[in-house]
Amino acid sequence: MLTFSAAQLESVAQAIFAAVGAPGDIATHVAHSLVESNLMGHDSHGVIRVPNYVLRVEQGRIVPDARPSILRETSTTAVVQGNWAYGQSAAKYGAEVAIRKAREANVAACAIVQCNHIGRLGEYAVMMAREGMIGMVVTGGFSSPFNGVAPYGGVGRALGTNPYAFAVPAGTREPVVADFATSIVAEGKLQVARAKRSQLAEGLILDSQGRPSTDPEDFYQGGMLLPFGGHKGYALALVADLLGSRLGGAEILGEAPHTVGTFILALRIDAFRPLDEFTAAVDGRLGEIKTVPPAPGFQEVLIPGEPEARSRALRLQEGIPIPEETWDKLVETARKYGVSTLPAPTA
Amino acid sequence: MLTFSAAQLESVAQAIFAAVGAPGDIATHVAHSLVESNLMGHDSHGVIRVPNYVLRVEQGRIVPDARPSILRETSTTAVVQGNWAYGQSAAKYGAEVAIRKAREANVAACAIVQCNHIGRLGEYAVMMAREGMIGMVVTGGFSSPFNGVAPYGGVGRALGTNPYAFAVPAGTREPVVADFATSIVAEGKLQVARAKRSQLAEGLILDSQGRPSTDPEDFYQGGMLLPFGGHKGYALALVADLLGSRLGGAEILGEAPHTVGTFILALRIDAFRPLDEFTAAVDGRLGEIKTVPPAPGFQEVLIPGEPEARSRALRLQEGIPIPEETWDKLVETARKYGVSTLPAPTA
Repeated sequence: MLTFSAAQLESVAQAIFAAVGAPGDIATHVAHSLVESNLMGHDSHGVIRVPNYVLRVEQGRIVPDARPSILRETSTTAVVQGNWAYGQSAAKYGAEVAIRKAREANVAACAIVQCNHIGRLGEYAVMMAREGMIGMVVTGGFSSPFNGVAPYGGVGRALGTNPYAFAVPAGTREPVVADFATSIVAEGKLQVARAKRSQLAEGLILDSQGRPSTDPEDFYQGGMLLPFGGHKGYALALVADLLGSRLGGAEILGEAPHTVGTFILALRIDAFRPLDEFTAAVDGRLGEIKTVPPAPGFQEVLIPGEPEARSRALRLQEGIPIPEETWDKLVETARKYGVSTLPAPTA
Repeated sequence: MLTFSAAQLESVAQAIFAAVGAPGDIATHVAHSLVESNLMGHDSHGVIRVPNYVLRVEQGRIVPDARPSILRETSTTAVVQGNWAYGQSAAKYGAEVAIRKAREANVAACAIVQCNHIGRLGEYAVMMAREGMIGMVVTGGFSSPFNGVAPYGGVGRALGTNPYAFAVPAGTREPVVADFATSIVAEGKLQVARAKRSQLAEGLILDSQGRPSTDPEDFYQGGMLLPFGGHKGYALALVADLLGSRLGGAEILGEAPHTVGTFILALRIDAFRPLDEFTAAVDGRLGEIKTVPPAPGFQEVLIPGEPEARSRALRLQEGIPIPEETWDKLVETARKYGVSTLPAPTA
């Protein structure tokens, strides 16, 4: 395991994205977004993604200098055309559109089509929380057979990992950020396990024959992910597909089989009650939850978003651990595109 | 087990609600709502609730002739004051408000406070689907210690069972209706197991010390329900609490410890794409899901809402099975309020 500072990782990712055709602001934003995921402890959504994003640029699936635009809009809604830009650009733009409309109209929703991988959904939900809004972000659809999830009671890759995020602003506390895939694990976690050559917990995947497996390699040989919570996670996954992908028309504005889209909802709190009254109520409620004694094996009850905030503080101090295989692939990608200034690990 | 027609059960429930003070239209609506849950196979939300609703009227928690009103509104939002009416009245009113506003503004949200038990959430979500909208209904807050759910990693009854429902209209198919509690099971299932002196499946409850238990008695000795899907269900439960209860101010407009509220969102589909194009896309997607081969032990992959639609068709034909104990309690409640015309079971 190697250790790098956030600035080091951001710098190398930025240089790679710039070298494969992204204007400076886009390269900086996508690199920053990925490294934020590393800081928050979600390495599956961190710089491990860089070689895959570059591959998608080579395949023409990501258009590195594209920018999103509005296809259709009303005062409360928009269909945002990602134009196959980096998904991070499309999602940030979509959240900005929702925020701008919700400032005027109190509630606003947008559906993003032609949408690449947007990274960690919580990032965009929190943009709304910082504006005194409740934010909801749902990604749905089918991007590639590599994130295939079986429907409850079925054997087949029929659904994506279709994640949800909600962010709710608090007062003196950090915002509540719920952010999870509707599969038991995100496919990115399998990438991490595969990179570390480690086994998975039981009950996460089936192999190509529908047999339970703990070997991440089995997933990449035709296996499938299982939805979390049985029929409940399956129901959420299907709703995410219809909301994220079909509402905006991603299945016709996209290119089969890449039909992923993202739904974003912004809800201005002070249309319901004064914002400071609400955030004080949230603080109070979170305080109640925090007083619940920990279960055996736990140190304390955590608020959704709290583990990420702690990881971020720690990793800003101590650096971000990166497996050698992940680093080697980053270096290989960098060299292929003439990026020669590579940082030395801090540990 | 006794069998009654839906009309018979509706008639007796209607007569009881009328006898304890509900105007005819309210008595009819609440009775109809409960019997619809029986038809759909969710007997825990059916006429078994009648004696408990009557008890709440006696306790002053349900005001049987109250009607909901709007406390505060904008063109896209409303805070609905349930005025401690039957929850079904408040939720139906809230969905109607959201639909009316979304017809004009494309997106609308309302938060219901002073809200009693609303029954099956899917009922209100489907009202929106029938109007060419995507409907979302979330109930959150704490109504009684008897539905206490532990936060992930904690030992304490800190959350309610906080359910979510989504409804999405299809074309030739029935709407997709996802409707589930964020606890793994309802407390009613524990009551049944306790009465039968049978053990529970593993992973449903903790005892008062936070240890996993399969003995339903442990729940009633200070134990707690677990959220579904570990930290993911917990995150959804907490978001439901903040969205359902705190957004509208149920914790101050309600009466501690009864702080339950309901959040309703309506999203007009044709603001995003033509409705018939969307519903055709949904039909197509559901058709794809239905082609997935069943897993061992399953006959077919079901769409959320499909089990309920099948149960409804069957029970309209064959009647609704009611355990004798449930019927006896209904009869006792009816006699107490002078309701003398009671149906004879059809089987």
